[in-house]
Amino acid sequence: MLRTHTCGELRIGNVGEKVTLSGWVQRVRNKGGLVWVDLRDRYGVTQLIFEEGSSEQALLEKAASLGREFVIQAEGEVIERTSKNNKIPTGDIEVKTTSLDVLNAAKVPPFVIEDETDGGEDLRMKYRYLDLRRRVVREKLQLRHRMMQETRKFMDGLDFMEVETPVLIKSTPEGARDFLVPSRINEGEFYALPQSPQTFKQLLMVSGFDRYFQIVKCFRDEDLRADRQPEFTQIDCEMSFVEQEDILTTFEGLVKHLFSTVKKVELGEVERMTFADAMKYYGNDKPDLRFDMKFVELNDVAQNKGFKIFDEAELVVGIAAPGAASYTRKQVDALTEWVKRPQIGAKGLVYVKCNEDGSFKSSVDKFYSQEDLKAWADKMNAQPGDLILVLSGDQSATRKQLSELRLKMGSDLGLRDKNVFKPLWVLDFPLLEWDEESARFHAMHHPFTSPKQEDIPLLEEDPGAVRANAYDLVINGVEIGGGSIRIHDRDTQKTMFKHLGFTDEEAQAQFGFLMEAFEYGAPPHGGIAFGFDRLCAIFGGSDSIRDYIAFPKNNSGRDVMIDSPSAIADEQLKELSIQLALKK
Amino acid sequence: MLRTHTCGELRIGNVGEKVTLSGWVQRVRNKGGLVWVDLRDRYGVTQLIFEEGSSEQALLEKAASLGREFVIQAEGEVIERTSKNNKIPTGDIEVKTTSLDVLNAAKVPPFVIEDETDGGEDLRMKYRYLDLRRRVVREKLQLRHRMMQETRKFMDGLDFMEVETPVLIKSTPEGARDFLVPSRINEGEFYALPQSPQTFKQLLMVSGFDRYFQIVKCFRDEDLRADRQPEFTQIDCEMSFVEQEDILTTFEGLVKHLFSTVKKVELGEVERMTFADAMKYYGNDKPDLRFDMKFVELNDVAQNKGFKIFDEAELVVGIAAPGAASYTRKQVDALTEWVKRPQIGAKGLVYVKCNEDGSFKSSVDKFYSQEDLKAWADKMNAQPGDLILVLSGDQSATRKQLSELRLKMGSDLGLRDKNVFKPLWVLDFPLLEWDEESARFHAMHHPFTSPKQEDIPLLEEDPGAVRANAYDLVINGVEIGGGSIRIHDRDTQKTMFKHLGFTDEEAQAQFGFLMEAFEYGAPPHGGIAFGFDRLCAIFGGSDSIRDYIAFPKNNSGRDVMIDSPSAIADEQLKELSIQLALKK
Repeated sequence: MLRTHTCGELRIGNVGEKVTLSGWVQRVRNKGGLVWVDLRDRYGVTQLIFEEGSSEQALLEKAASLGREFVIQAEGEVIERTSKNNKIPTGDIEVKTTSLDVLNAAKVPPFVIEDETDGGEDLRMKYRYLDLRRRVVREKLQLRHRMMQETRKFMDGLDFMEVETPVLIKSTPEGARDFLVPSRINEGEFYALPQSPQTFKQLLMVSGFDRYFQIVKCFRDEDLRADRQPEFTQIDCEMSFVEQEDILTTFEGLVKHLFSTVKKVELGEVERMTFADAMKYYGNDKPDLRFDMKFVELNDVAQNKGFKIFDEAELVVGIAAPGAASYTRKQVDALTEWVKRPQIGAKGLVYVKCNEDGSFKSSVDKFYSQEDLKAWADKMNAQPGDLILVLSGDQSATRKQLSELRLKMGSDLGLRDKNVFKPLWVLDFPLLEWDEESARFHAMHHPFTSPKQEDIPLLEEDPGAVRANAYDLVINGVEIGGGSIRIHDRDTQKTMFKHLGFTDEEAQAQFGFLMEAFEYGAPPHGGIAFGFDRLCAIFGGSDSIRDYIAFPKNNSGRDVMIDSPSAIADEQLKELSIQLALKK
Repeated sequence: MLRTHTCGELRIGNVGEKVTLSGWVQRVRNKGGLVWVDLRDRYGVTQLIFEEGSSEQALLEKAASLGREFVIQAEGEVIERTSKNNKIPTGDIEVKTTSLDVLNAAKVPPFVIEDETDGGEDLRMKYRYLDLRRRVVREKLQLRHRMMQETRKFMDGLDFMEVETPVLIKSTPEGARDFLVPSRINEGEFYALPQSPQTFKQLLMVSGFDRYFQIVKCFRDEDLRADRQPEFTQIDCEMSFVEQEDILTTFEGLVKHLFSTVKKVELGEVERMTFADAMKYYGNDKPDLRFDMKFVELNDVAQNKGFKIFDEAELVVGIAAPGAASYTRKQVDALTEWVKRPQIGAKGLVYVKCNEDGSFKSSVDKFYSQEDLKAWADKMNAQPGDLILVLSGDQSATRKQLSELRLKMGSDLGLRDKNVFKPLWVLDFPLLEWDEESARFHAMHHPFTSPKQEDIPLLEEDPGAVRANAYDLVINGVEIGGGSIRIHDRDTQKTMFKHLGFTDEEAQAQFGFLMEAFEYGAPPHGGIAFGFDRLCAIFGGSDSIRDYIAFPKNNSGRDVMIDSPSAIADEQLKELSIQLALKK
C-alpha cells in the first residue's frame, strides 16, 4: 500500500512511529516558518507539519506550494501536538514530515469541497465525483452501505435466500410504463426492465424456496418528480406458508434491527391502523404519527346553525393545533391563503381560538355562540390555547386538504422531529380502485394481491368495497414498504384479471406462465418490498432520495456527469432493426 | 405460520410433541392398512403416517388419494419410527397425522421432481420453477446465496463500501456490443446497460471512497455460447493507494475465505506465472495446474534429422503424458484423429512411447534412432511408461493445439479432479493486442489499464510488446477474475486512447468525464472483477454457469418460461419515438 496508516487512524499511542500517509490536501497553512497541511481521506484528517530549520527548505517550499485537492504521499514521524484539536480523533498528534510526493496534482475544484459548499445543485451533479468527496455526502452512502449489510445479515439469519432475478424480462401493460430493450438476436422483439421482481419471486415460492429476498434495482419510465428516479432500489422479500401476521412480525423485526444497529434507536411497538381509519382520522393512507391532531368530524355540532357553507357541505371536519391559539391575525390569514392555493384547493378556512380563559374567538362568531363553539371544542377535546382549524366540502377532497393542513401545522409547530421515528402498519387496503380515465378498476396494490376471504362475495356486486390482504409500512408519514398476501390458485387469479378488464386471452398472454405455475402445487405465500432509497433517506433525516444514490439522474432522467442518454450510431440502430421516428 | 416446524427439523427429541407441518407431497405409499406420505420442503423430508383403525377412515382415504406435488398442511404427533431411516436427518421419527388439509392440488408435473429427472433441458427451462424444486438444483442456488453473503462479509470486514452504480448508462463503442434502452423523455436518445461499472468505480476512487465493491449485474449483447449469458453477475472491486501486490494479496484473501467458509477447503498458496510463461509452458493464458504436462520445446533435438515436417516447422513442442505408454495403437490413432479435427486443426501427431524397459517406440522411428528419442525423453524428463506427444508448426497455432491436447490428456487420464482446486495468478499481460479485422490495436484488458512503467518507452516503437499491470485469477483452467492497476492521469489516458485509434474528439465525447475527473486529484488505484456465475460453477464442480442462475436464458437469449423477449404494442414504440425496421 502507498500508506502505512489511513488519515483517520493515528493516535497519541502512535507517537514516535515512522508512518506513510496518502490522501488529499484539505488545507495548507503557512505561518512564521511553519507549514501545516491537513491531509484527508475517507477515514479522517491528519495534520502534517513542516518546520523551517528542521525540515529541508525544498521540502518546506514544496509543502507550501501544494494546492487544495492535490493527492500526496507523505512520510514522517508521529509527534504529539503542542496545541491539541479535540474536535477530531487524530487531534492529539501530527506527522512531522520528512518526505513528500505529489501523486497527482489537482485543478481548482469548481466548488468548495467542505461540509458547507458553494456549489449549486447543477454543478454538483455534473461533478458528482467531487460532491461525493465531501464528508456529509459520503456519509450518506456509508449509511446506505451499512443498511445493506445489516439487511442481508438479518434476512440471512432468518433463512431467507438471496436470489438474483433477471433484469431482461417481458413487458406487461399493467402498472407503470416499462423501459424497453430491443433484442438484436430476436429481431423485432423487446425485453423490458423489471418494475419489480414480483412474478419471479412468486415463482420462487412455487419452487419451494420458502423464503426469498433481494436488494434489487427496479425501473419505471415515468415522468419524474423530485423524489422519483427512473432506476431505484428495493428490498424485495417473499415467504411461503404465512398469513399476514407472520409478514408483519417478520418485517417489523427487520426494521427494528436496522434502527437498532444502524441508528442505535430502539423503535418500540409498531402501531397498526386500517386504511379506513387512516383516511378517516388523517385523510391520508400514510399518516405521520409523530404528532396527534386527529381529524374530528363536526357535522352534528356545526351544521344547522345558519352558516350556509357548512350546512351545504357533505363534511365538516377539523383539527386542534396545540398551543396555536396565540397565532396572530396575520398568521391565521396566511393559513387561509395557504389552504386556498391551487395545490391544496380549499375554498376557505374556519378557525376557533380556544383562549386560555375558556372563551372562544372564531372566524364564524356571527353564526355560532360561545356555547356552540364550546361544543366543538369538547367534541375535539381541544384544550385552552389550541387553535381549531375547520374545513368543509366533499368528503374526499376535504379530507385530503385537511391532511395537507395538518402536516403543515405539524411542521410549523415543530412537531415533526427528524430524530423521532413513528412506524405504522396501515392494513386492509381496498383491493381495487376505480380509474375514471380508463373507466375500469385497477389493482390498488397489484393484480396478484389476494382479497380478504370474507369480502370475496362482494367481488361481483361491489368490487370497490372488497378489502385486500395488503399492508404498508409507514414511518413519519412516508410509505417505506408495502406488500400483500398473494393469490395462489389459478381460478382466483383468473377472476382477478377479469375484474381488471383483461380478456382471457390477454391474461393468458401476459401471465399465463404464472397461472400455469399455480396449477403445479403453489403454496400460500406473501411478501413485501421496501423502497430502499427512501428508507435510507428516512434514516438519514432527509427528504431527498437523490442524496442517497451515488450517481442519481436529474428530473429529466439525465445523468449530466456522463451525459446520458445520448445519440447512438446508425449502425447500432440497424443492428437492432429499429429506426428513429421523431415527433418533433 | 402455517407450520410449527419445517420438514427438516424434527428429531427424536421432539417425540410426543404436537406439530403442524406444511409442504409438498414427495411420495405416497399405501400398504396393508397403512399410508405413508413423504412431505418435502426446502429444509428436508418428514414422513407422515396414517394407520387404519387409529386414524379415521376418511383421513386415511384422503391421505391415500394425495397426488405428487400436492401442497398440504398436516397436524399430528411426533412418534419414534419402528423402522428408522438413517439416510435422512429426520429418519428417526414420523408424524402420526390427525388432520390433513390440501392447501393446493397439483397437476402431474411434466417431469419427475427428484434428484434424477426424466425432463430434457428444454422442458426444464420452460418449467424452470419446477426444476428449481429439485434438491440438486436448489442446492446450487443455496451455494450461490452462501457465496454472496460470505463475499460481502469479507469485503465489509476490510472496509470496502458496497455502492450501487447505475444500470442506465451511456453507450460506448469500445468493448463488446451494448444493450440499448430508448429514452422516452429524451427523444431520439438511448441509455446503454453496463458491460461493467468500470468508469463509475474509478470515479468512486476519484471521490476518495478508497475501497469499493459491488455484486452487480452486467450485460453484453453478444452472440451466445453455452457458457455465456446476456446478463451475468460480477463481484466488482476497486481500491486506492495500491500497487499490484496489494490487490493480489487482498483478493487471494477473498478467494481463500470463500473456499474456507463455503467449501471447507483450505486453498493454500496461490501460484503466480507470467503471461509469457503461461503461453510458453501451457499454450494458454489460463492453464489448468491440477496436472503437470508442461510443454517442452524440442526444436534442437528433433530438427535436422531428416524428418521434413519437423525440419520446416517454426516450433516442435511436446508433452509427456504420465503412464500413457500403454495406450493401444487404436487409442493413439484416435488421438491423432482428435488433433486433426477442424476445431483443433493440427496436421498430425507424433508420439513416442517410453517403454518400461528403457526402449522407445515412436511414430517416427524411420527418422530417429533410440538415442535420438532418448534425447527427447531426457529433455522432457519423461519417465518409463510415459507417452510423449509432439506437435509442430507455427508458434502460436501449435501452442494452442498442444494446449487443447494437454487438457484432453488431463481429462482422459483422470487428472482433472473436480474436488482439487489449483488457483493461479497470471501476471504481466500484454497491454495491447493487434486486431486484424479493424487493423488496429485493441486493449487486451480495457483502455483504462496502465502500462508497466518500464515498458512505457516501447509504446511508440513496439506497442505490442508493452506489458500491462494486469492480472487474471485462474482456477483449474478457468479464468474467474481479472483486473489491473489503472491509469490515473489525464495525459497517459489520452495517449492510451490515441494508441487505440481514438481521435481526440472521440476520446473526449466518450470518456471526457473520466479524463476531466483525473485532473481534480485522482489517486493511484486498481481493481478486479470476478465472474460470479463462473465462480459459483467452479465451487459447485460444474461446467455450466446456467445451473447457477435462477432464471437463465437459452442460447438465443430467450427466457422460454416467460416467453421473452416479445413483440410489443405499437403504442409503446410510438411513445419511444422509434419504429421497427426489420431486415427479414
